[in-house]
Amino acid sequence: MGNSFGKLFRITTFGESHGQGIGVIIDGCPAGLDIDLTFIQQQLDRRKPGQSKITTQRKESDEFQVLSGIFEGKSTGTPLGMVIWNKDARSKDYSHIAGKFRPSHADFTYQEKYGIRDYRGGGRSSARETAARVAAGGVAMQLLQQHGIQVKSFVSQVGHIKLKTPYTELDLDKIEDNIVRCPHSETAEAMIKLIDTTRKAGDSIGGVITGVLKGVPAGLGEPVFDKLHALLGSAMLGINAVKGFEYGSGFEGVSMKGSEHNDRFEKKDDAIVTTTNFSGGIQGGISNGQDIYFRVAFKPVATIMKDQQSMDQEGNPTIVKGKGRHDPCVVPRAVPIVDAMSALVLADCMMMNKSAKL
Amino acid sequence: MGNSFGKLFRITTFGESHGQGIGVIIDGCPAGLDIDLTFIQQQLDRRKPGQSKITTQRKESDEFQVLSGIFEGKSTGTPLGMVIWNKDARSKDYSHIAGKFRPSHADFTYQEKYGIRDYRGGGRSSARETAARVAAGGVAMQLLQQHGIQVKSFVSQVGHIKLKTPYTELDLDKIEDNIVRCPHSETAEAMIKLIDTTRKAGDSIGGVITGVLKGVPAGLGEPVFDKLHALLGSAMLGINAVKGFEYGSGFEGVSMKGSEHNDRFEKKDDAIVTTTNFSGGIQGGISNGQDIYFRVAFKPVATIMKDQQSMDQEGNPTIVKGKGRHDPCVVPRAVPIVDAMSALVLADCMMMNKSAKL
Amino acid sequence: MGNSFGKLFRITTFGESHGQGIGVIIDGCPAGLDIDLTFIQQQLDRRKPGQSKITTQRKESDEFQVLSGIFEGKSTGTPLGMVIWNKDARSKDYSHIAGKFRPSHADFTYQEKYGIRDYRGGGRSSARETAARVAAGGVAMQLLQQHGIQVKSFVSQVGHIKLKTPYTELDLDKIEDNIVRCPHSETAEAMIKLIDTTRKAGDSIGGVITGVLKGVPAGLGEPVFDKLHALLGSAMLGINAVKGFEYGSGFEGVSMKGSEHNDRFEKKDDAIVTTTNFSGGIQGGISNGQDIYFRVAFKPVATIMKDQQSMDQEGNPTIVKGKGRHDPCVVPRAVPIVDAMSALVLADCMMMNKSAKL
Amino acid sequence: MGNSFGKLFRITTFGESHGQGIGVIIDGCPAGLDIDLTFIQQQLDRRKPGQSKITTQRKESDEFQVLSGIFEGKSTGTPLGMVIWNKDARSKDYSHIAGKFRPSHADFTYQEKYGIRDYRGGGRSSARETAARVAAGGVAMQLLQQHGIQVKSFVSQVGHIKLKTPYTELDLDKIEDNIVRCPHSETAEAMIKLIDTTRKAGDSIGGVITGVLKGVPAGLGEPVFDKLHALLGSAMLGINAVKGFEYGSGFEGVSMKGSEHNDRFEKKDDAIVTTTNFSGGIQGGISNGQDIYFRVAFKPVATIMKDQQSMDQEGNPTIVKGKGRHDPCVVPRAVPIVDAMSALVLADCMMMNKSAKL
Repeated sequence: MGNSFGKLFRITTFGESHGQGIGVIIDGCPAGLDIDLTFIQQQLDRRKPGQSKITTQRKESDEFQVLSGIFEGKSTGTPLGMVIWNKDARSKDYSHIAGKFRPSHADFTYQEKYGIRDYRGGGRSSARETAARVAAGGVAMQLLQQHGIQVKSFVSQVGHIKLKTPYTELDLDKIEDNIVRCPHSETAEAMIKLIDTTRKAGDSIGGVITGVLKGVPAGLGEPVFDKLHALLGSAMLGINAVKGFEYGSGFEGVSMKGSEHNDRFEKKDDAIVTTTNFSGGIQGGISNGQDIYFRVAFKPVATIMKDQQSMDQEGNPTIVKGKGRHDPCVVPRAVPIVDAMSALVLADCMMMNKSAKL
Repeated sequence: MGNSFGKLFRITTFGESHGQGIGVIIDGCPAGLDIDLTFIQQQLDRRKPGQSKITTQRKESDEFQVLSGIFEGKSTGTPLGMVIWNKDARSKDYSHIAGKFRPSHADFTYQEKYGIRDYRGGGRSSARETAARVAAGGVAMQLLQQHGIQVKSFVSQVGHIKLKTPYTELDLDKIEDNIVRCPHSETAEAMIKLIDTTRKAGDSIGGVITGVLKGVPAGLGEPVFDKLHALLGSAMLGINAVKGFEYGSGFEGVSMKGSEHNDRFEKKDDAIVTTTNFSGGIQGGISNGQDIYFRVAFKPVATIMKDQQSMDQEGNPTIVKGKGRHDPCVVPRAVPIVDAMSALVLADCMMMNKSAKL
Repeated sequence: MGNSFGKLFRITTFGESHGQGIGVIIDGCPAGLDIDLTFIQQQLDRRKPGQSKITTQRKESDEFQVLSGIFEGKSTGTPLGMVIWNKDARSKDYSHIAGKFRPSHADFTYQEKYGIRDYRGGGRSSARETAARVAAGGVAMQLLQQHGIQVKSFVSQVGHIKLKTPYTELDLDKIEDNIVRCPHSETAEAMIKLIDTTRKAGDSIGGVITGVLKGVPAGLGEPVFDKLHALLGSAMLGINAVKGFEYGSGFEGVSMKGSEHNDRFEKKDDAIVTTTNFSGGIQGGISNGQDIYFRVAFKPVATIMKDQQSMDQEGNPTIVKGKGRHDPCVVPRAVPIVDAMSALVLADCMMMNKSAKL
Repeated sequence: MGNSFGKLFRITTFGESHGQGIGVIIDGCPAGLDIDLTFIQQQLDRRKPGQSKITTQRKESDEFQVLSGIFEGKSTGTPLGMVIWNKDARSKDYSHIAGKFRPSHADFTYQEKYGIRDYRGGGRSSARETAARVAAGGVAMQLLQQHGIQVKSFVSQVGHIKLKTPYTELDLDKIEDNIVRCPHSETAEAMIKLIDTTRKAGDSIGGVITGVLKGVPAGLGEPVFDKLHALLGSAMLGINAVKGFEYGSGFEGVSMKGSEHNDRFEKKDDAIVTTTNFSGGIQGGISNGQDIYFRVAFKPVATIMKDQQSMDQEGNPTIVKGKGRHDPCVVPRAVPIVDAMSALVLADCMMMNKSAKL
């Protein structure tokens, strides 16, 4: 269970890293949406391995095939299915870890939960599953574009290198200008260097992605359990390797006083806005029309190129060899995943909100 | 919508701050559970207003009434309903804010979403709603106790005062020893002093609650979208005033290297354990049998005793007066809410997990 | 589980026959709806016991109390809670069946499923639970009225007495003109006589209710699993004592040929209509704008005033005495329940349909 | 929406009649189940077109491909995906109905709901979609077999030809002995003859399928809205062309008296059984351990080989030509669909029931 996300714009993903492929069924995409397949492929290309020197050198084209739900270029309101076939599978790469529990991977927990696991490349626990979300997110984004909503994420921290400039002073059109996806070129350079050094050392490093959602109308999100930020948090915490989520003032807001933190309403060109935005565009769980922004913490990826002491399924000590082709830092490739999950949340909330009032 | 939480142990809450009362229906509590009503009342008492000098001085007894689902002291498997009637309502206290948008409250967003709102005491957006969750959590805790699971939360930060001692070195039985619910007495004293000073200044301050879940068996949580930490995160972000959630190494783990961060498996008394626990007891979204721990950030409460510039429903500038009886810092009273939401997540995951394998 | 119904206009009912009361929480009622409480009470009065000589003589006023979700006469978009307190409980009436399994009741199956049961008046399995649905349906009806949709059900069969006149030739405003709720006065008289004779014999008899939904716009219902007739069928089969559901041509349509059964489209006053309506207003699971009509079969109620051979919880033969005050035929009082469930289905489908296309 | 079915053993189907293919994702199949792919193919073969002279002569092999969720012959607990590629598509066959509303088909209602439709072969509204359910049902059946549960459906009526023998006197192992799937050979012969005559006349005819579920343990089903028979009814009414559902005594039970209809409990070989079974194995919505049986009414299929007067999308009168290769009667091929949907309901209920009591 737990392979579906969303209530009205609802996706179900399937597939394993080294099985037939990875796919997604969207149930609830409104009919009549022009679907630009090239745009979806572009999103997948932003996530695909082998795209730069700081990502895994594994080559996968990640081309997707539409299974259903599109007719003459438009969504039909029926389930929209997409699949990305696995091509460069190389199952044998993983035979050496078949009976071993890799440290900080899902091997042990899958075995405990299911009593069986597809150990090839991590099976279902592989981040390859997120390709399906990116494809679905590509559809959601096209729905949001119709309402002038923009979803922009970028890398704001790698290891100890932290982008200090607030997002409001950044040019978010420059996110794709460098391979680490940080729109501040000097910081980007330092980040790339750190990832490269880490890679050469056979190690890995964590990072932070900042998400910014612009043009979101007031009223999205449900006020008690499905608060907009709880849905975003759940979406982000559902991405592999994520360890934390904060929005608006986040953990830093804890040290502030109410009199400093409260966002004052004022009128600007007939719209009600807030002079500050510590709320992060969400008050009482519902969007207030201001920018929504949040930060997502990613741990250093568990697969490293060093031998590690561990345990096998029989409970015997064993060595897990550092082998394969992996990312030294996940955040550059995770940017489109954060975008996709953001778009899926917003699309769903927009549809939910149609029934909020008469 | 969005007033239900959980899949199999599913709660639906209802009620407004100044309406008839606040309540909850639990659909899915297994039959045959001995329900200790006194225990539930104790949990409610930990949350109730007026309990100490650092909480709001508003007096509400928060006694609950069972509506259904219990027969001869046991759950029957049918919906278990509970209600806490509103007694000390004082609706007139709120007439002065009827048409005004209080800064950083949900007034504006409710108005935008619904076109109507019960402005008395914040209506449904009031933290009073969480009493219903605490009552439901009291049932979930009794279910967990049958499996030896312990749910312990405590205040680990108030404003800039941060408890440095790791939770493993604290005596978690001392949480209730002081009014701020921090098990480290010196830090607690400093926190209490800070809250008291803040209260006297008519201001408010934020804080952090750390949650610790002990005795959770391996295998809980679903591996893709309903990862155990995503469910916990969603639960915590659904609590009023929460701005962030992190588990295990959290945001700090970002700066670590994989070789430092990976938790090594080893055998200890026939059990497989990890030597470190940066994973926070969850790997690939599934519990691994180690302690689960997380941190929840609460912003400074929006209601302060100072006059604030704001806007009314007609878009005219207005002053929101500082009136009423409110908490200068929410975390002491939020501890039982974090406990309750943790328990609700775990109870649900345990029931979901019964179908994971043959 | 299974105490909730609907996706967007979602109800959760709670309560037992002889507990504190029976209630319902509606999560998803759109904000801004004028709620006429008198109308809801009228619906409850149509269902309440003791209303005529052919229903149980048990007296219950079935007055309801609003718990939440209404402010200044309008729905607020937050959970709308209602409760009907149990007054005339007389728990002692049921002590004689505490350990016995009444034939064709839910005593045995509850005991098997839950290992415990509230035996007083059938507890949760009592048809008294449907009062909560009638209250919720009363809200849904007011939503439908805004869209010109009419929900009309009537008794079309009692025992072997079957109303032959097609519904299109009946005056559906006459349903309330007699105590059996059959709008054809001669047939109604015969039905009343049969029920009365059955009652005097200490026995019970079954019946059929026909539902007619007028003014339903085309497009409601989802085409695969949540077909409009599948939702209606599920709603009706969820009512106590129901044994069958058919819509349009139903079981009789089986003997027809396609060339006879197919409904021809034609234009009438700029609207597309069908010349016949064997489809029952639903094609491919989606409403086509024509009248929706269906039939619901109710078994003879299991409680009779005769002694019956049965079994106790220990597996020993025992006699279940004919005692208490019960309906000899459920259909007259089930008419408002069928109305309520119809309204709940339509309200939900209307809200779901808002997201069907761009 | 509405393309998913089940709560814990949950399926989502996708695909159109003349698109890439038809498929299903099962989310929630317990891990460790040996999956016999040949058995699944056999179920699909029972449904496939062209299997006998009384079905459509369209030839489709309906071979399925596993997409995910099976590793080394066993389910892994992750989503189990299957697809049946469309081969004999012949899209051009349907160009003549592109802009026309076929009588009693879903053309008009899809157009109204979605504003767009894939008209090729009915697109998503085609009964071809049920192949996906049969594949999923084939997995559910294997789960049920582990618990000794048997799912048996057969044709009990075609047009006016009705099998009079009660199911208890039939040999249900003979269902596959003839092409109409009626285990009573003389009746079967008459049915086949009637279908053949109807086919030659270019017309179609309806039918009834009786479902029998044996070995179902007591306790399955939820007592209020998700009554076992409401779930079965919803499942059956979700099958294309179904107009009615009844279980146990059904519509005929209406004319019975309570004293006749009540099923008396008695002990038989240490088990509690009922001497009669008008309840159809379900009391209060929960299985009682006796046989569950029900009847499902199918209308005459709307596609006939005769020219019919109808309307086009512009509202002009038009003739729909009788063309293509279609079933004169759906029930022979619908038997495996009824089996599949029954199995899906029972599998889900068994999993739900694991949490009913401590």
